[in-house]
Amino acid sequence: MVMQQAEIGLIGLGVMGSNLALNIAEKGNRIAVFNRTPARTHEFIGEAGDLAGNIIGCDTIEEFVAAIRPPRPIIIMIKAGDAVDQQMELLKPHLSANDIMIDAGNANFRDTIRRFDNLKDSGLTFIGMGVSGGEEGARHGPSIMVGGLEESWKRVEKVLTSISAKFNGDPCVAWLGNDGAGHFVKTIHNGIEYADMQMIAEIYGILRDGLGMSASEIGDVFGQWNKGRLNSYLIEISEKVLKAKDPITGNPMVDVIVDAAGQKGTGKWSVIEAQNLGIAATGIEAAVAGRVLSSQKQERVAAEGIFGLPKPVEKPHDGMAFLADLESALLAAKIAAYAQGFAVMAAASKEFGWSLPMPTIAKIWREGCIIRSQFLDEITSAFTKDPDVANLIVTPAFSKMVKDSDAALRRVVSYAALSGLPVPALSSALSYFDSYRRGRGTANLIQAQRDFFGAHGFARVDGKDYPHGPWGSGAAIY
Amino acid sequence: MVMQQAEIGLIGLGVMGSNLALNIAEKGNRIAVFNRTPARTHEFIGEAGDLAGNIIGCDTIEEFVAAIRPPRPIIIMIKAGDAVDQQMELLKPHLSANDIMIDAGNANFRDTIRRFDNLKDSGLTFIGMGVSGGEEGARHGPSIMVGGLEESWKRVEKVLTSISAKFNGDPCVAWLGNDGAGHFVKTIHNGIEYADMQMIAEIYGILRDGLGMSASEIGDVFGQWNKGRLNSYLIEISEKVLKAKDPITGNPMVDVIVDAAGQKGTGKWSVIEAQNLGIAATGIEAAVAGRVLSSQKQERVAAEGIFGLPKPVEKPHDGMAFLADLESALLAAKIAAYAQGFAVMAAASKEFGWSLPMPTIAKIWREGCIIRSQFLDEITSAFTKDPDVANLIVTPAFSKMVKDSDAALRRVVSYAALSGLPVPALSSALSYFDSYRRGRGTANLIQAQRDFFGAHGFARVDGKDYPHGPWGSGAAIY
Repeated sequence: MVMQQAEIGLIGLGVMGSNLALNIAEKGNRIAVFNRTPARTHEFIGEAGDLAGNIIGCDTIEEFVAAIRPPRPIIIMIKAGDAVDQQMELLKPHLSANDIMIDAGNANFRDTIRRFDNLKDSGLTFIGMGVSGGEEGARHGPSIMVGGLEESWKRVEKVLTSISAKFNGDPCVAWLGNDGAGHFVKTIHNGIEYADMQMIAEIYGILRDGLGMSASEIGDVFGQWNKGRLNSYLIEISEKVLKAKDPITGNPMVDVIVDAAGQKGTGKWSVIEAQNLGIAATGIEAAVAGRVLSSQKQERVAAEGIFGLPKPVEKPHDGMAFLADLESALLAAKIAAYAQGFAVMAAASKEFGWSLPMPTIAKIWREGCIIRSQFLDEITSAFTKDPDVANLIVTPAFSKMVKDSDAALRRVVSYAALSGLPVPALSSALSYFDSYRRGRGTANLIQAQRDFFGAHGFARVDGKDYPHGPWGSGAAIY
Repeated sequence: MVMQQAEIGLIGLGVMGSNLALNIAEKGNRIAVFNRTPARTHEFIGEAGDLAGNIIGCDTIEEFVAAIRPPRPIIIMIKAGDAVDQQMELLKPHLSANDIMIDAGNANFRDTIRRFDNLKDSGLTFIGMGVSGGEEGARHGPSIMVGGLEESWKRVEKVLTSISAKFNGDPCVAWLGNDGAGHFVKTIHNGIEYADMQMIAEIYGILRDGLGMSASEIGDVFGQWNKGRLNSYLIEISEKVLKAKDPITGNPMVDVIVDAAGQKGTGKWSVIEAQNLGIAATGIEAAVAGRVLSSQKQERVAAEGIFGLPKPVEKPHDGMAFLADLESALLAAKIAAYAQGFAVMAAASKEFGWSLPMPTIAKIWREGCIIRSQFLDEITSAFTKDPDVANLIVTPAFSKMVKDSDAALRRVVSYAALSGLPVPALSSALSYFDSYRRGRGTANLIQAQRDFFGAHGFARVDGKDYPHGPWGSGAAIY
């Protein structure tokens, strides 16, 4: 019997891998699958129902490789880290020239670059592929960010396009550049996601601890906002989780959850790479710090015992106007966080020679991924009109939005500051605007100090070549 | 002729190396010096005046090594980076067992650990030594942070103690732990310095752009503050640079200096290591971002063209009370920045097995280094009383200071937010307090969202084992 060969292979039938494989099969693509334990493969095929006809379950790696049409694209969907290197080593001897190993896990892009380079002389190629959207996305349509050689991309373009999310029919998948480009963009996607979630949590804190609203009332507010300019998946699920009841106690679910957030590394990586690139990514920094402090629960409880809690200032008189302020403030802060994320990617694009296409990145984030939103469609338009703009904030569309919303952000930060409600990400966004919009800042004082104690020198506003102050080296002569 | 051997050697007669060598000679220690170009060595000896009697200038590396009493401590004071590795390779064949290479440059502590480890099997030892205080400090008394084997430290303790700064007679030098401990602590010192300078610059901005004060008037304010709780080298020199006149134009010097600050890497390293250690170091992050944005001068000028500048809100009615608020706000923010820096060091101490002595670190920063201050004497006392406290903020002395000053910080952040004056570091400090002092934060919402889209699970406040919300995996069933 001659069996029709598979278009693609997949190794690793965990939740994400299984869902991706089902998605691939469902879209009419033939797929070969392999798992370390064949029992799982049989179980998977058993559960695949109608889709099993498009799935070739393989018990051995030889069988698996033979089942795929060359050049063979093979998705590796296992725990990020050393396991990926081990899997690649096991697979390598069975492959032929131009076969493509595809790491679809949450890899650090520096590992992806290393893996790409290591395969260079072998005749094999490598794709680092960021997949966003969680389990549901993998099953029904994720946003997919691809990095690798363009010819490798061409081989998988059809399959990946078929399984990706669609925004008004546009597939949310793209080839973004060489080696680590896909995983880098996925990392920054997650960094922005951190910032977005932190900002939402800060607004939630103001509504809960400042205005004294219940979880369900706050859910209503987010529900309203989801119909407006903030329309997005994260706002949508904020309403849902705030309105959900705990099956055990019947209390609002969020009130039963411990306020200590975990993190898996992509937020931290985003900050570290922004630092390496010399780009201000203060919204992501604030979000990572927010999670860090959230995890220091016992220290916080002890500190509250010492300091007590500050009393919120009197409730704003016009409740509805204040809610409108909070909505605008969240929008303004969100603009800053996204502007920073895109600025990091622009710098990385130069540093790593990727030519990252900003409009395309915004485009493929409009559906499928966690930060999907109407807002990203507006970013797509802004970057399409002006792909080389220095900062999203100064595009016509977004500068108008900033002008319309920054006053609200000021009022909200001011209210929170006076009330003792922590708003690290919102206030970082405001400081970012206010630093970025000010032609004459205050670093002249820093430069004077550095020259004073370290003879670092400075530039003069009149361009004259006299780069030191009258204080002498180390100010001995002052 | 038998010449008395030198107690120590020094390679690299740039400004820092020359000053350190003169300092060593002046304190009665015999020192051998070597420079890549012998002409510089001769020039140096010629300029050393009376001190030349304690200095042995050497034209060859053989002569240099022979001139030092074994086991030989040799300070390498050259540009940080590859040059240090090259110099070490050149020196190595000439040394004998237990000789000590001492890198006194601004090395990344990870390079120091690598260099330390590389010498392990050679019988040679290595010290990574952070030296703070700029050129003047090197010449007349720096703060010195030593990392390496304790026996290496014992060999150099006397010389280093003699040249270090003294605070009320206490030498500002200490052995802090193995391998990279000294350079790590120096890095965090610099990170704190970044934050301190940024906070001062933000207050300067409020005085200049909010209250419309001249450079000289602002200098007076800092001069007053230097007599109070903010007494420190950085406040002292702030007054001096603000009052200095440009020799060319006669205008205030600071008004002639371009507002674009440079950075050499230690601020960035501090942030990256804080991220790796999972500690919130938001003050340093804000300061690094402040310098980054300052350097984007053209973008800022363009953005001001688009947005204009917000109008500061009406001047506070009671000018003197507002100045007092600014003073207290700066103190409160400073506490947060220092608390964060010490928290980073505490985490690093565990991670790298250093047993960093917190009271000692505060002690040796009281004189000689750029952040020297009365304040560090108070930190010394607080950590001496309670060396294992979770956070500086909750010590009795500092919790009282926070209670006395946080309301002022709230008013200042609120004023700046409404006025469009950027205060990234001050507001990061306030958010840090307000996050740290709140037993029940808002990360429960983040955990709910993460469980909703990624089935991450969460802990429950009642400790029950039911770690998911009623939304089902990926919320498909909601």
